[in-house]
Amino acid sequence: MPFKPTEYDPYDFANRRHIGPSPAEMAEMLATLDVSDLDALIDQTVPRGIRQNAPLDLGAPLTERELLWELRQIAGRNTVMSSMIGAGYHGTVTPPAIQRNILENPAWYTAYTPYQPEISQGRLEALLNFQTMICDLTGLEVANASLLDEATAAAEAVTMAQRVSKSKKSAVFVDEGCHPQNIDVIRTRCAPLGIDVIVGDPDDLDCTEVFAAVFQYPGTYGAVRDFADAIAHLHAESALGIVIADPLALTLLKEPGAMGADIAVGSTQRFGVPMGFGGPHAAYMACRDAMKRAMPGRIVGVSVDARGNQAYRLSLQTREQHIRREKATSNVCTAQALLAVMAGFYAVFHGPEGLKAIAQRIHQKAVRVADALSQAGYDVGPDHFFDTITVECGALRDVILRAAADRRINLRPVGNTRIGIALDETTRDETLIRLLEAFGVASIRDDQGFRLPDALARTSDYLQHPVFHMNRAETEMMRYMRRLADRDLALDRAMIPLGSCTMKLNAAAEMAAITWPDFADIHPFAPDEQTKGYRALIDDLSDRLCRITGYDAMSMQPNSGAQGEYAGLLTIRAWHAAQGETGRDVCLIPVNAHGTNPASAQMAGMKVVVVKCTDRGDIDVDDFRAKAEKAGGALAACMITYPSTHGVFEETVREVCEITHAHGGQVYLDGANLNAMVGLVKPGEIGADVSHLNLHKTFCIPHGGGGPGMGPIGVKAHLAPYLPGDGQGAVSGTRFGSASILPISWAYCRLMGGEGLTQATKAAILNANYIAARLDGAYKILYRGTEGRVAHECIIDVRPFDKSAGVTVDDIAKRLVDNGFHAPTMSWPVAGTLMVEPTESETKAELDRFCDAMLAIREEIRAIEEGRSDREANPLKRAPHTVEDLVGDWDRPYTREAGCFPAGAFRVDKYWPPVNRVDNAYGDRNLICTCPPVEAYQEAAE
Amino acid sequence: MPFKPTEYDPYDFANRRHIGPSPAEMAEMLATLDVSDLDALIDQTVPRGIRQNAPLDLGAPLTERELLWELRQIAGRNTVMSSMIGAGYHGTVTPPAIQRNILENPAWYTAYTPYQPEISQGRLEALLNFQTMICDLTGLEVANASLLDEATAAAEAVTMAQRVSKSKKSAVFVDEGCHPQNIDVIRTRCAPLGIDVIVGDPDDLDCTEVFAAVFQYPGTYGAVRDFADAIAHLHAESALGIVIADPLALTLLKEPGAMGADIAVGSTQRFGVPMGFGGPHAAYMACRDAMKRAMPGRIVGVSVDARGNQAYRLSLQTREQHIRREKATSNVCTAQALLAVMAGFYAVFHGPEGLKAIAQRIHQKAVRVADALSQAGYDVGPDHFFDTITVECGALRDVILRAAADRRINLRPVGNTRIGIALDETTRDETLIRLLEAFGVASIRDDQGFRLPDALARTSDYLQHPVFHMNRAETEMMRYMRRLADRDLALDRAMIPLGSCTMKLNAAAEMAAITWPDFADIHPFAPDEQTKGYRALIDDLSDRLCRITGYDAMSMQPNSGAQGEYAGLLTIRAWHAAQGETGRDVCLIPVNAHGTNPASAQMAGMKVVVVKCTDRGDIDVDDFRAKAEKAGGALAACMITYPSTHGVFEETVREVCEITHAHGGQVYLDGANLNAMVGLVKPGEIGADVSHLNLHKTFCIPHGGGGPGMGPIGVKAHLAPYLPGDGQGAVSGTRFGSASILPISWAYCRLMGGEGLTQATKAAILNANYIAARLDGAYKILYRGTEGRVAHECIIDVRPFDKSAGVTVDDIAKRLVDNGFHAPTMSWPVAGTLMVEPTESETKAELDRFCDAMLAIREEIRAIEEGRSDREANPLKRAPHTVEDLVGDWDRPYTREAGCFPAGAFRVDKYWPPVNRVDNAYGDRNLICTCPPVEAYQEAAE
Repeated sequence: MPFKPTEYDPYDFANRRHIGPSPAEMAEMLATLDVSDLDALIDQTVPRGIRQNAPLDLGAPLTERELLWELRQIAGRNTVMSSMIGAGYHGTVTPPAIQRNILENPAWYTAYTPYQPEISQGRLEALLNFQTMICDLTGLEVANASLLDEATAAAEAVTMAQRVSKSKKSAVFVDEGCHPQNIDVIRTRCAPLGIDVIVGDPDDLDCTEVFAAVFQYPGTYGAVRDFADAIAHLHAESALGIVIADPLALTLLKEPGAMGADIAVGSTQRFGVPMGFGGPHAAYMACRDAMKRAMPGRIVGVSVDARGNQAYRLSLQTREQHIRREKATSNVCTAQALLAVMAGFYAVFHGPEGLKAIAQRIHQKAVRVADALSQAGYDVGPDHFFDTITVECGALRDVILRAAADRRINLRPVGNTRIGIALDETTRDETLIRLLEAFGVASIRDDQGFRLPDALARTSDYLQHPVFHMNRAETEMMRYMRRLADRDLALDRAMIPLGSCTMKLNAAAEMAAITWPDFADIHPFAPDEQTKGYRALIDDLSDRLCRITGYDAMSMQPNSGAQGEYAGLLTIRAWHAAQGETGRDVCLIPVNAHGTNPASAQMAGMKVVVVKCTDRGDIDVDDFRAKAEKAGGALAACMITYPSTHGVFEETVREVCEITHAHGGQVYLDGANLNAMVGLVKPGEIGADVSHLNLHKTFCIPHGGGGPGMGPIGVKAHLAPYLPGDGQGAVSGTRFGSASILPISWAYCRLMGGEGLTQATKAAILNANYIAARLDGAYKILYRGTEGRVAHECIIDVRPFDKSAGVTVDDIAKRLVDNGFHAPTMSWPVAGTLMVEPTESETKAELDRFCDAMLAIREEIRAIEEGRSDREANPLKRAPHTVEDLVGDWDRPYTREAGCFPAGAFRVDKYWPPVNRVDNAYGDRNLICTCPPVEAYQEAAE
Repeated sequence: MPFKPTEYDPYDFANRRHIGPSPAEMAEMLATLDVSDLDALIDQTVPRGIRQNAPLDLGAPLTERELLWELRQIAGRNTVMSSMIGAGYHGTVTPPAIQRNILENPAWYTAYTPYQPEISQGRLEALLNFQTMICDLTGLEVANASLLDEATAAAEAVTMAQRVSKSKKSAVFVDEGCHPQNIDVIRTRCAPLGIDVIVGDPDDLDCTEVFAAVFQYPGTYGAVRDFADAIAHLHAESALGIVIADPLALTLLKEPGAMGADIAVGSTQRFGVPMGFGGPHAAYMACRDAMKRAMPGRIVGVSVDARGNQAYRLSLQTREQHIRREKATSNVCTAQALLAVMAGFYAVFHGPEGLKAIAQRIHQKAVRVADALSQAGYDVGPDHFFDTITVECGALRDVILRAAADRRINLRPVGNTRIGIALDETTRDETLIRLLEAFGVASIRDDQGFRLPDALARTSDYLQHPVFHMNRAETEMMRYMRRLADRDLALDRAMIPLGSCTMKLNAAAEMAAITWPDFADIHPFAPDEQTKGYRALIDDLSDRLCRITGYDAMSMQPNSGAQGEYAGLLTIRAWHAAQGETGRDVCLIPVNAHGTNPASAQMAGMKVVVVKCTDRGDIDVDDFRAKAEKAGGALAACMITYPSTHGVFEETVREVCEITHAHGGQVYLDGANLNAMVGLVKPGEIGADVSHLNLHKTFCIPHGGGGPGMGPIGVKAHLAPYLPGDGQGAVSGTRFGSASILPISWAYCRLMGGEGLTQATKAAILNANYIAARLDGAYKILYRGTEGRVAHECIIDVRPFDKSAGVTVDDIAKRLVDNGFHAPTMSWPVAGTLMVEPTESETKAELDRFCDAMLAIREEIRAIEEGRSDREANPLKRAPHTVEDLVGDWDRPYTREAGCFPAGAFRVDKYWPPVNRVDNAYGDRNLICTCPPVEAYQEAAE
């Protein structure tokens, strides 16, 4: 038989494409670990007592082609209409150059949060552009690099105002003209904190009652009002003014800063980011300089590098919740970096004159529609508006809504008899004619008048920095985006071994659908019959996630992991309340739990009680029991991370759950480490009641340089009635959070199947143990399981080297840049250590490259220890090395070669950081969070 | 009035996005040229006597969003069916990782042909992978880096065989089992050359009659036959054997080399490149080592750089037609580089075991269908087949075809009663069931038998090089593609100022549609009712191109510029023949015409008579007249390039046309320089009868690293009946050539409108004159018009520096890499000069960066001239500089800084070439055109 059938499967996505080590490599790695096969390793790693009984069954895996075909069928079940719903979500034109070069470019979307500034200068510059844009448009001094969505940003503004306000009042006023979802989320967030929310007309505002007031500008029904007087009155009472402002309207209208506002927030969605059925989009927050240290989120700042050259970095990082832990006041850790980058580039692409022209065109359309309807006898309001009007239709309201829908236009039902109409950048003249037809109106004029209050005309300049005035040729824009991308080291060039952050493959097939118009161009409040595809996909994804986790219900509303934690605790809180147990407010949190947990508990109105760990790094069960007993009837919940942040599957997890339940508490199991459990352990089966899942970690949504993310929560059946939007208020602006990225996670589940997902978990554990084995001896590996294995990540103890060689964890992290790697997680969860999570997607070759680099670094340390290398003038202290070092005089006792090409560094394809080591202290001392003037660049260069 | 309307147009694609210089920059540039306004410059540049009278009217320009909307409507008029038509075009799965990281990545698609090896190592490696794959699969020693399509490759093989065959016969035998389009194109190409084409059954081959025979393997109706005996007989008569082979079938079947074939050609379309209604795809050609110097097309080879490190380059470039001119034997100058890169990556992605498994699966599907139909009583042939069978259906044939179409399946009608069925990688089991339903057959078995002849089982290994055995994880593939991309300098990082090559912006919006399934997944022979969208777009594009050029009809068949030249000449030839003037065979070609012109004329059976130029570089009209008179009644045509390759609008063009016509000849005006004419001059109005248009130059199809291209021809009405496919035979495999990239050019026309296109022409002329003005004095600018202006490009004379400083044009080109630029066109059309075409898409800032670089180079030359710099150890001779230079010892009399950061070079974002200067002679002496063994890399590294 010269022809023989082959069993090889060329489309085996799980084993050949997603999982890094090939079968042959796996065999070698298992030999290194001295273990017979992969299942034997898993048996040594994951306690038998918690393993799931049946294999994970999610149907057969699809090939990439089958997947895309199915996705197209699903997309086809959505209906794209001209949206005039407004309410904070608007049609927008994503410039194709931005779509192709940013949103569809792995160099941008696979990047990690820019904690390591030397390898992140590109996205830091892009985010600085975003911050500059926000400061300019709002007229405030300091902006952060984005928040999750407008509604959560508004809620963050309220709690921030409470922190900084000198008023001792416990109520906040909220303009009834705010978008309903903003009011909802503010209510949700205020309730556990005991803040009263007074919703009303700003004219009725009693400034003596509140510590702050929130206004929407323009209002949800279109009104453009001046809040300057109200804010002045607030200030007189030591209260603060918060304005939620549409940044596009601010190109025409007086900026919040000029009205006296202390804080401004809003959404930059309409700056080129598709509506996507609700998200992701970048919200912004800006504030006065005096209160910048109270601002949540990340702030990009300007500093200098070791050569004194200008360099960007994240400022004021010590405010971050994972460092402050139980002292934190906000649990915000994810931004919407990729979307903020897009919005910033949209402003660079259009410049101030372009943005203003877009805003004016929209306004003209609104004026023309308002005039035509008025002339036809409709009662149209308000008198002054930007893009939105509200029309009284009486009994004919639903007839008109239907007539509009027949003409493929969505309008907003307001009250029982009114209709809201919001115009946007994409509205065409033909569509205006169809719109008026639905109202029975036949004529529209070419009016060019303005319906904005003269007193609110913007008089100040904005976007004066040269970056917003560069030549607008696409060639120039494309090259600018390429240059910034090239400055950064992302997953498309090297492993990013970040503990707990699960920087795995974001496969091209998984990413394909998010830019399809029938996913991208759907308004979050579009009628259900137009979103059948989305909802079917979400239902199916929820069902798969329930099967994976052992939970009974899922909420897709939280749009970040930390948001998920918070939503989960609120669900527990609501359940306790329903049982009449309103007094339960103690939350036990072991020190090996995730850093955001305490902050989330605080926000949910719980008192955090910290539980100790044993020397092995495990929860101290005796301490846990003692503290649970002490809390007694006040015990609301415990929050555990599993496997723990120490990278170990603790044997006692069931016991911890049982103790909690015995005292009437609920178990929150942080799902950030779910990548070590899928197919092996179901949180819902080992005693947990609720978990959030980081879809941007375990389920392949890319990190995007620090967002987007999704943090849905799964719960056991008894908690299901209390999920966000059902038994409790909303935690984010829309029903399904960042819905438009859910196809990514769905695609991952479908491509892998149950067996593939399980194999991925095993491979992740194998990869981590392989690194631990190769580095063992050279370094101490902190924390292991009872059989000497780590879970899917491991902690490398580098603390001894500070004493022995003066080498810090920072030095090693920067030296790894020379070796061609992003540093592992630094000093978390244990100060002075490195935590490594390779994920299943890295090949043995890449793991070896990393281990070779780490071993070479150990030898460099040894050379210092043994006096063969200077304690200051050595490659570690001088890392990272740049081309500038090579070009200039070389006065170091080691060679250029040794400095620039240590083990692991590619020869031809080496990544060169654009700056030397960045001075963190300088940046915090001299906080600059907008683009520096051009002269500053010149000075730095000289 | 605090609010004032703005007239700014944020979507002005032509002036703000496509055209580089902003209005303000244009004003500065005009001041430098000392001219009052742009129109005055045009008046000085373009002779009034040839200007078109009316402005170009192509309707209003669209915004990018409107464009994409219109394109989606057009795409929706195409119908995607499961294609089982076969005949050389097959469904294939483009791996999403390849689509995203190659096909949709400007770093790959905006690259130029890799003539400058130092900045092209990435794509050279990718093309070397392609060549290695072809050599392995065909079993032949040498492969080129792709040809246009299978049909033209087959015709090239025939003419190549005639050149190398020792047989003196003038006939070629063509297997009647060849795909019809292959036979057609061979006939077309042979006719003017006087080669008889004998089509028949290989069993009837009389080897004494022919210099070569062409076989199809497998045959168009499915037969898998052994041609070893036939080839042995051919060899006995000093004739050659050519096999057109499906590379996927070769993973299972004996390779052509093992059959004794001398040349193999074929299409790599089914290696991951969508059918695209006919193209573009990469054809391949491979041959025995002994005949490699006769092979047309480009060959990537392996050489060394100045440090002795391995480096890739194009080999044997002196064979190229633009150098050999009238001695050239093929006019092939475009390859299908981007598509060859994709096909090569497809093989890297799947590896030999993956390709074999794909081939086997396809074969199994064909076997199952054949068995099911046979068992149902159908007469199914042939006995041995790979993926295609032919079924006798008698009178029911059309009923079955219709039944299949109703089930969304396209089959191939064969003769009057038969149906061809070709299975492919994409055919799903469900589709097989639907297929059999159309034949009234209800059951299909899971048979695993083979229907391939045992004697033709492949016994040799293939794709053994490690690159085809790398870990197949997508992470690894993505990083490999990124590393290769980063080695190259493409339009996404810097201007590529190539004379005549028009490296302008390829806007993201223009590129968007080519990967949409309803453009990508259409078979070229799909029924007309399924291709309404395509045909409407092509009709509309033809109409616009006619209005632009002043021609009356357009043929979209030629898939490269040179192909267009050839098709144009054939059209002239056919017209002469129809007038009874068969004796006309003289073609006048001035020396300032394009390099491919003489080769095309030869191929069209014309005798080339060269016309002199004046010292000014213009056509010597007296010489032209004299030679036209001498040719007299034998004058067939003249071929002129306008504006000439010297970059000047000659005043005498009308006169030249009149002389030609006066002697009964036709005027072929080469459209390569149309970018200098659109909206100003219509070739069809100044006396030309036919032109080809390079859609990949003037009309924004990206160069793709050396292809794809499109070269449609426009003709005056009298020639229209003689266009390819109407009055004469086919020049390429399908009706509309590389149809799937036509949406790019259509998009460009729609985005620009007539006014925008005209403005682009003016800006291109402005940019060229600005460079000429800035460099004037430092360099001599060769050739100018009567008022001292150049057209859209200019020639910089650097010949004097060879004598004054020992600096050659090569040194300057390599030094420009240090400055951060791709070199201009070297030594063409005048040896020892540089030709610069900036295009309209470059900004003033980028032009200034280039001019600063050129002026700095001039100063470096002056330093040598004045003895301040060594004649050998200077930055020009040592260019380009690499990181290796910086890392190693520096023993040069100039500084590292001076070497690496000359004027123009970016500081932070500098492009570093991966190799030092490549040794061309070494590579030609030691021709290696497959991937070297890994040890070779190691040796080079040591």
